[in-house]
Amino acid sequence: MAASSEIEEGARLEPKFDADGLVTAVATDAATGELLMVAHMNAEALAKTIASGDAHYFSRSRRKLWRKGEESGHTQRVLEIRVDCDQDAVWLRVEQTGPGACHTGRRSCFYRAVPLGQSGDIKLEFREADRAFDPAAIYRKS
Amino acid sequence: MAASSEIEEGARLEPKFDADGLVTAVATDAATGELLMVAHMNAEALAKTIASGDAHYFSRSRRKLWRKGEESGHTQRVLEIRVDCDQDAVWLRVEQTGPGACHTGRRSCFYRAVPLGQSGDIKLEFREADRAFDPAAIYRKS
Repeated sequence: MAASSEIEEGARLEPKFDADGLVTAVATDAATGELLMVAHMNAEALAKTIASGDAHYFSRSRRKLWRKGEESGHTQRVLEIRVDCDQDAVWLRVEQTGPGACHTGRRSCFYRAVPLGQSGDIKLEFREADRAFDPAAIYRKS
Repeated sequence: MAASSEIEEGARLEPKFDADGLVTAVATDAATGELLMVAHMNAEALAKTIASGDAHYFSRSRRKLWRKGEESGHTQRVLEIRVDCDQDAVWLRVEQTGPGACHTGRRSCFYRAVPLGQSGDIKLEFREADRAFDPAAIYRKS
């Protein structure tokens, strides 16, 4: 393993995969800066994303590599990838094809706000939560 | 545990902590949309962030709760918190106090780009990587 200074200050991509072999991947809309989704990548998903410019992720629930939009058609074209200081997270600036990134039918997965200044049971507030598409019409039932 | 539909469509904050008791936390600059950092929160860090409006995280390497800026003075005032569909990630829109969020001295932790269309050994490209502050002058040696 490379020294900390080399990981932080070096020019070599050396992702720090966790015990499950994953790094965190954050996708933002390249035009608006909106946070679209947070997902994970294994080494293969990262390599395919870099090589192809199409976002690939690793689904922890389904235990499989997945090209974003392979089922919905809502692909993500990657304009830029950045890696963070300790190389355990990547940031994708993407062009989101189609109406949305979230499997619930919204543009972004982050459609609920957590009100500040509270404690105990917290009631979420929906924001920009109108559905951009009907997930039942897009995704196969499995 | 609540049903998937309740987690995704409900108005109750019910974070899905991983096996280590953590959710992913993404902080962006509220003014510019720039991605500043990706970190983690345990239940206590999330509760303190919500209650106080100051970003708190959980350091996986140091195994401790940490208020952002407690050592450097570079605090993060939280303007909005959002939670994602499956409630395993939160997005903080923050006002970053001081010159930067990254412990290496940069404004953002994402100061290196991964060039697209490559495979094998990947050479990173530094972007906006000038130091905004001198970390040696800010952080105590431990």
